[in-house]
Amino acid sequence: MTAPDWLFLLSVITSPHGGDVCVSAVIRSHSEYHRCPDPGPGPVRQGDLSLKSRSSSGASPAAMAALANSGSASSPMVLLAPKTKTKKKHFVQQKVKVFRASDPVQSVFMWGVNHSINDLNQVPVPVMLLPDDFKANTKIKVNNHLFNKENLPGHFKFKEYCPQVFRNLRERFGIEDLDYQVSLTRSPPMRSADDQGDSLLLNSYDRTLVVKQISSEDVADMHNILSEYHQHIVKCHGSTLLPQFLGMYRVSVDSEETYLIVMRNMFSHRLVVHRKYDLKGSLVDREASDKERVKELPTFKDKDFRNNMQKVYVTEEQKEKFMEKLNKDVEFLVKLKIMDYSLLLGIHDVGRAEREDDECEEAVNEEEGEVENGVTGGPMVGSYGTSPEGIAGYMSSYKPLGPGEFDPYVDVYAVGCCSGAPQREVYFMGLIDVLTQYDTKKKAAHAAKTVKHGAGAEISTVHPEQYAKRFRDFISNIFA
Amino acid sequence: MTAPDWLFLLSVITSPHGGDVCVSAVIRSHSEYHRCPDPGPGPVRQGDLSLKSRSSSGASPAAMAALANSGSASSPMVLLAPKTKTKKKHFVQQKVKVFRASDPVQSVFMWGVNHSINDLNQVPVPVMLLPDDFKANTKIKVNNHLFNKENLPGHFKFKEYCPQVFRNLRERFGIEDLDYQVSLTRSPPMRSADDQGDSLLLNSYDRTLVVKQISSEDVADMHNILSEYHQHIVKCHGSTLLPQFLGMYRVSVDSEETYLIVMRNMFSHRLVVHRKYDLKGSLVDREASDKERVKELPTFKDKDFRNNMQKVYVTEEQKEKFMEKLNKDVEFLVKLKIMDYSLLLGIHDVGRAEREDDECEEAVNEEEGEVENGVTGGPMVGSYGTSPEGIAGYMSSYKPLGPGEFDPYVDVYAVGCCSGAPQREVYFMGLIDVLTQYDTKKKAAHAAKTVKHGAGAEISTVHPEQYAKRFRDFISNIFA
Repeated sequence: MTAPDWLFLLSVITSPHGGDVCVSAVIRSHSEYHRCPDPGPGPVRQGDLSLKSRSSSGASPAAMAALANSGSASSPMVLLAPKTKTKKKHFVQQKVKVFRASDPVQSVFMWGVNHSINDLNQVPVPVMLLPDDFKANTKIKVNNHLFNKENLPGHFKFKEYCPQVFRNLRERFGIEDLDYQVSLTRSPPMRSADDQGDSLLLNSYDRTLVVKQISSEDVADMHNILSEYHQHIVKCHGSTLLPQFLGMYRVSVDSEETYLIVMRNMFSHRLVVHRKYDLKGSLVDREASDKERVKELPTFKDKDFRNNMQKVYVTEEQKEKFMEKLNKDVEFLVKLKIMDYSLLLGIHDVGRAEREDDECEEAVNEEEGEVENGVTGGPMVGSYGTSPEGIAGYMSSYKPLGPGEFDPYVDVYAVGCCSGAPQREVYFMGLIDVLTQYDTKKKAAHAAKTVKHGAGAEISTVHPEQYAKRFRDFISNIFA
Repeated sequence: MTAPDWLFLLSVITSPHGGDVCVSAVIRSHSEYHRCPDPGPGPVRQGDLSLKSRSSSGASPAAMAALANSGSASSPMVLLAPKTKTKKKHFVQQKVKVFRASDPVQSVFMWGVNHSINDLNQVPVPVMLLPDDFKANTKIKVNNHLFNKENLPGHFKFKEYCPQVFRNLRERFGIEDLDYQVSLTRSPPMRSADDQGDSLLLNSYDRTLVVKQISSEDVADMHNILSEYHQHIVKCHGSTLLPQFLGMYRVSVDSEETYLIVMRNMFSHRLVVHRKYDLKGSLVDREASDKERVKELPTFKDKDFRNNMQKVYVTEEQKEKFMEKLNKDVEFLVKLKIMDYSLLLGIHDVGRAEREDDECEEAVNEEEGEVENGVTGGPMVGSYGTSPEGIAGYMSSYKPLGPGEFDPYVDVYAVGCCSGAPQREVYFMGLIDVLTQYDTKKKAAHAAKTVKHGAGAEISTVHPEQYAKRFRDFISNIFA
């Protein structure tokens, strides 16, 4: 057997939707090779004669997925599973692919994450994180001359903040670096329908991760809270309702800088969210606007929650577990003088999903053969279980999930409804918008008001403690 | 089974010889995992509590090899196998390791090759090489702030020349990119004993590759001949006596630039060379100096070859095959007006190697337990056959070789002696110093002589055609 243990099949693929040129690098180990469908003969290369070479790398054109845009989502921390779920089980799963998106910022982001994880694999894991690790960064500047210009801008920069800290956080959140890399780079992240164009809001092709554009002030705020955030995650053993911050980067293309933060998707990568609330614990001005209400998935607020007689039906034990997490997280936020956060609540209606699935199946059967339907959400469905599969890979490899079922290791914010619930539901609950610090933002408001009303005037702005109390009181009452 | 398909075990290892801090990243596929010895429990990390994490990455200290310096070699294209070969079969083979050398230029070189191969895996193989590919380059500049400073300089640059061309050449020479990467980065390349300190001469830890420092003029010369060199390699199906150029790089550390070219080692990664000749086909001034003769492995020359009554004992068929290659290569060099090249001839004495092996075995038995002996040349010996193993990996995985045996896919310049030879020998023959172009260097000499002796004075400097004829005539007579 002279075949190499690792076959790298590099394919140039043009997406049927638009001009994206994609590159896929398929890595297979010996044993896996035999499990995979034959990629077929590669195209003939220039002067490709039978060398004494035992090299078996070859380019192979492969059928490729145009990833349809997923459902709408207005929350910055959440992107939804698409309405149209695939029913085609014969989707050919691609292995480690690195695609180049049509947007250069996204291409560089993918390149950067791929580079970063490869690079980190050569950097020792420190015995413990030191204060310097929370100030660290690594910058890389690339200038390509007549090289790879089809896929990447010729000149770009990529900066990663606190690489050791985020690597540690990923580990604490149960995310393998290789899976993180695959989830972000196998296919380009998709733009959310709610992404207004002024700032990027993406989720990974497998919908396990959210990539959100933030401001340079947000980057500074993250640096301010990172050490305490890390300590909190250590203390709570990674079990938290806070956003799971997994990586923070800066992408520079054409001297324009884009700051991006990667978080775990609070909603499911698989179960569609049918209703959505953003709850702050105040009824003042907390109602979805008429404009919001006509959206496909409006973000309802506290007042709507009351008016809809909405309740969260979970067991007493689950409620207690949830409130315990919430209390610890809120305590942490108070300590950091953070306020204005929300509880994001997503509700998956199992019955509705089943009905929509059936409709979808019929539609797919009618349109059998159309590429677009065949590949939508493909990565979720019965994958071949070869490594690495991305963050959601394990689940699909080891056990197929029925309606309303979820893998608690992937959909970590999910809670299923209790047996006595009026309808079968799955709830996704997490804390969002946790970067507003009283000190930085409220002080400015405070000062403005002092100027306006005089030094002795009473300030109506609540303090983090007050905010937390009101928030906690409200949330403890959302349960049936 | 919730274990990830890929386990990344990152270990911090300190070499027992000097302050090199090494990092090893062990990649294992599922199936391989069970073949590998258990790495043992990792050290406890800061606040490492039982998360819900299914992550299994852990740091594991491992016994590590201090690579003893290999035998001496004065030729710039060759580095020799060490005299002391290991006899310990219980050496624990490490998987994909990326070490940081103590010399920052070498560290950056390793980092760069690792990065380059990872990056190339995401760049499509072109259907055919275009003229632009021969002018292409990719530059990367890294600035690390409080990150990874134990292993790499904080600021450095790495430039790769004509990445697509060299990737294509590697493929034509039968070298998988992953093996190339492993051979150059699993352990730091070793400095040759003949490396005088003014310019780097290294060979890869597994002795399959040579890394040679060249001048910026050499880089320009390489660019001048690269397209024709590539065509020649295509025409001869990679079967050549010319150096196998596999990669060309520039490393910048502290604003000092180092140009490096990687070639296949013309001598064996495994069989020790006991005698060495540099043959040009002229007897004038072609004799090893007294200073040279006292070296452990002197470079003898044409006159010494005659005086020693040296002969190369191969079959008529092998001689014909060799001369056919030589004629084609020399024809190519003439076309490019290249001259002053040599035939490098290395001779492995099988009987002497056996005797030395026996002595070595005794010595090892006496010193049993000393780390230094146990690991010298470890990678050559009965490896576990897991991927990727570097360029020499296949051989050791699939068939153990006896005395004087070699794998013609690894030791491509080797020819075994014929049955009637006075003693069992293996010959390594290749063309070296092929970058001297008549146009660039001889013209300067020509001009100088014209100034000195007048325009009509006869120039003694031979032309490329004359050089080639004399060379070929001499070489065709080295055989018995």
